Amino acid sequence: MDISKYLIETKIDSASETPLYLQIANSIAQKIIDNTLPKGTKLPPERELCKFFGVSRTTAINAYRWLEQEELVATKVGSGTYVKENSPLHSETFQIPWSQLFIPYPQTPMTSILKELVSTPYASEIISLATGMPDPSFYPLDIFNSLFKKYLCATNPADFGYIPTEGYQPLRETVASMLSQQGIDTTPDRTLIISGSQQGLYLTSKVLLERGDYVIVQSPTYIGAIQIFQAIGARMLILPEDNSLNLDILEDYLIRYRPKLFYIISTYNNPTGQVLTEQERRDLLRLAMRHRLVIMEDDPYSQLYYGEKPPLALKSLDNSESVIYMSTFSKTITPGLRTGYLTGHPALINRLALEKQYVDLHSNNFSQWLLNLYLKQGYYEEHLKFTRREYKKRRDVLVKTVRRYLDKEISFDVPDGGFYLWCKIKKPITSARLLQEAIKCGVFFVPGQAFYTVPSEESEFRLCFVTHPEPVLVEGVKRLSKAFELIHKNKATKTVSENQLNPIV
Amino acid sequence: MDISKYLIETKIDSASETPLYLQIANSIAQKIIDNTLPKGTKLPPERELCKFFGVSRTTAINAYRWLEQEELVATKVGSGTYVKENSPLHSETFQIPWSQLFIPYPQTPMTSILKELVSTPYASEIISLATGMPDPSFYPLDIFNSLFKKYLCATNPADFGYIPTEGYQPLRETVASMLSQQGIDTTPDRTLIISGSQQGLYLTSKVLLERGDYVIVQSPTYIGAIQIFQAIGARMLILPEDNSLNLDILEDYLIRYRPKLFYIISTYNNPTGQVLTEQERRDLLRLAMRHRLVIMEDDPYSQLYYGEKPPLALKSLDNSESVIYMSTFSKTITPGLRTGYLTGHPALINRLALEKQYVDLHSNNFSQWLLNLYLKQGYYEEHLKFTRREYKKRRDVLVKTVRRYLDKEISFDVPDGGFYLWCKIKKPITSARLLQEAIKCGVFFVPGQAFYTVPSEESEFRLCFVTHPEPVLVEGVKRLSKAFELIHKNKATKTVSENQLNPIV
Repeated sequence: MDISKYLIETKIDSASETPLYLQIANSIAQKIIDNTLPKGTKLPPERELCKFFGVSRTTAINAYRWLEQEELVATKVGSGTYVKENSPLHSETFQIPWSQLFIPYPQTPMTSILKELVSTPYASEIISLATGMPDPSFYPLDIFNSLFKKYLCATNPADFGYIPTEGYQPLRETVASMLSQQGIDTTPDRTLIISGSQQGLYLTSKVLLERGDYVIVQSPTYIGAIQIFQAIGARMLILPEDNSLNLDILEDYLIRYRPKLFYIISTYNNPTGQVLTEQERRDLLRLAMRHRLVIMEDDPYSQLYYGEKPPLALKSLDNSESVIYMSTFSKTITPGLRTGYLTGHPALINRLALEKQYVDLHSNNFSQWLLNLYLKQGYYEEHLKFTRREYKKRRDVLVKTVRRYLDKEISFDVPDGGFYLWCKIKKPITSARLLQEAIKCGVFFVPGQAFYTVPSEESEFRLCFVTHPEPVLVEGVKRLSKAFELIHKNKATKTVSENQLNPIV
Repeated sequence: MDISKYLIETKIDSASETPLYLQIANSIAQKIIDNTLPKGTKLPPERELCKFFGVSRTTAINAYRWLEQEELVATKVGSGTYVKENSPLHSETFQIPWSQLFIPYPQTPMTSILKELVSTPYASEIISLATGMPDPSFYPLDIFNSLFKKYLCATNPADFGYIPTEGYQPLRETVASMLSQQGIDTTPDRTLIISGSQQGLYLTSKVLLERGDYVIVQSPTYIGAIQIFQAIGARMLILPEDNSLNLDILEDYLIRYRPKLFYIISTYNNPTGQVLTEQERRDLLRLAMRHRLVIMEDDPYSQLYYGEKPPLALKSLDNSESVIYMSTFSKTITPGLRTGYLTGHPALINRLALEKQYVDLHSNNFSQWLLNLYLKQGYYEEHLKFTRREYKKRRDVLVKTVRRYLDKEISFDVPDGGFYLWCKIKKPITSARLLQEAIKCGVFFVPGQAFYTVPSEESEFRLCFVTHPEPVLVEGVKRLSKAFELIHKNKATKTVSENQLNPIV
């Protein structure tokens, strides 16, 4: 057997830190393992190996010696070097069966949706109205640049070393005072900096929930929350969102199931855009207090209002410390900062920090340092004003265009803030079916099913209106309208062909 | 009861987003909750409240109305407003007992040591030789600054939006090719970007370990790993480090306990500085393959060698995919970047990414973007050369100074790389006792006990020699020597006084 044809693929790199002999040996070993070189194969004599790879005799000898030590080859004196008959590596059974070793993972049809959604959708011609991504062209990179330039030298380099798990102290102070301005009475000590509000959700769940515990969620709600609760093995009790908070169902849940947590996006819910009224907030808090219900208030969107300011956060009305409040800069500035914040009872902050230390020691200090400057110098307020104005225009254009092109097809409520238009298909067409055609027409959205914990209405879907400028939104809606046309046409054809089908018994 | 003295503390802020009535009401509510205003207390009439706070009549009325709605006060017609007798808030039992709600936490004496260690130790006059912190004055902030300035405009802003959980693709490519240069045969697909190697440890443990599983660790080993395994409830089998890898004990463990994982710092172990020889690495891998042992190779220090290059990583010799390899830029560049990397079997990378998505969606992109530029332009190699040179000097100075001042007190091996000098106290003095006196003398270190999973030798401790310049190291050692003197003196005194003690029976 001439094995030179197998060795020819081997590239040796003399610039690599791996010694040449090991590069050669590894390459041969790989071919033994994958059975390219079967048991008993005779390997070329050392002098041929040198010539073949253009290496020294010592290198060739060392390569074979290594293979011998690894019990992959054996040298028969006077005969040559052979692939060993009973090499442990030969046996498939000695490989580690990785995918069978993992802790069981909750398999749900939606399991990987979140991961796909956060994947950047800008690679192709397709218009993505799926991801809740702020417009990248609004990211204040120039300001970051100038802050970096202006303040880096003046900063103690130790601020970029290890810092306390709870966060960069100046940022904790700035965030606490920002929250106070928003009506939430807190202190730096009660403020935890987290790696995005996703991490707040994760840590809080980790600290409060065990397999089998009950959690109340709005229905529909944020898919990332659903996934975390599912992963922990919690049971989710749903509170249907029919334009108001159903306190009767809620109280019944509290009495019957003693849930550990109520997860709620109180302002501009994702995906519906709904907002709790001030009265609902008060009633909810009163009920929470009476039943010692822990409320996790997720509030990424409340600063993005396009008309009247929304009511104050639940947390600002919370006199009994029932509420864990968290928010993030991902939706208002840029997701890449991976920085959010959480405020709550000091015992909670303390325990969350202990958990966080396992997960990542502390959040990125460059982002924390940058954000502190950005906030303190008033850029954040300005940026919010700017994005509110621009996103309002986009919402209005999307609403107008949908009304113009899709009025017969879908219904929706105009959201007062946030990122999303929550659409209901009027005719009996599922959003999955629509998505199939929509992708063909070059537009993409999230089917509503993703936001439910139990199989539910299949005629809803979510459009994000902030990522793209107005003309792209208009084009997106036109493509969506084409998708509907295709469905109506195909349906007609299908109906005919269905009629012609003879049942096979 | 004149309650104005209680109200006088209330500060109203007309610039706040919280309406004035709510600020007043919240303040009164707080005083009702904390019993400053007991049940039955008569509150001032509305007109007095207006005067007191300088607000309108409507504001005062709204404040009382809110308190009524909250069931905190009741108005008796013709008599006034009173703190309610049976307010739900009055009852202590209605507060959420936060610290009793958390999932049980593994309580160990060392539980919060890691958290303390990462807290910045630069606040006081004390010289900390405790934290494994690279010298902040070496952080390449100027280069970051110029990279930021030069490349930010040329970057697609979408790179700072949501990106795939696995990491910023250009960085994955750069890291994979860097690893190949280091002899580790990998691809971008098999490379996961993590938020520091701490996160690699966390995610891998989460995916492979359950309560009660066995894990093998070196003894002593990195405290952060011990803490994660403890938190999961794993049982740790220890492999004593007596200058060589004890393969007999290891094999016996493998047969008897079927451990899920062997966690090892193969090069410059933290805290001992020990290195596995090339032969030990081969033998270990052969054993691993025979028993299908998963090896988690933690390798933060191998690029920081102060003499000969260390042997290649276990992973580079790993033909059977038994090894999970992880490293970080925290020790070589700056911890604040919170960026590390992990390579292993594709099935593992895939599953780790699913877990990571729960924890933080993805790691900080600003750091990933910056690091990619930093590595690609050759700055990293230069920086490593520089730090190797400087840290070598520091190691030499520490070794020399310890020999000069503490030769009678402690013994140690000179480490060939890494961050630490692992010291053994010759006389029967515990490191805890030494630390007590050392802090008084203004120097700080980590007592050896922190690196053990079971109570062990108490006469060891770890000194980090990279954080401070040479003169500070010298001063630190002098202070340590003073601490020993104090102990010897006190001991003498104590011995006398002990002799005078009469036992109390």
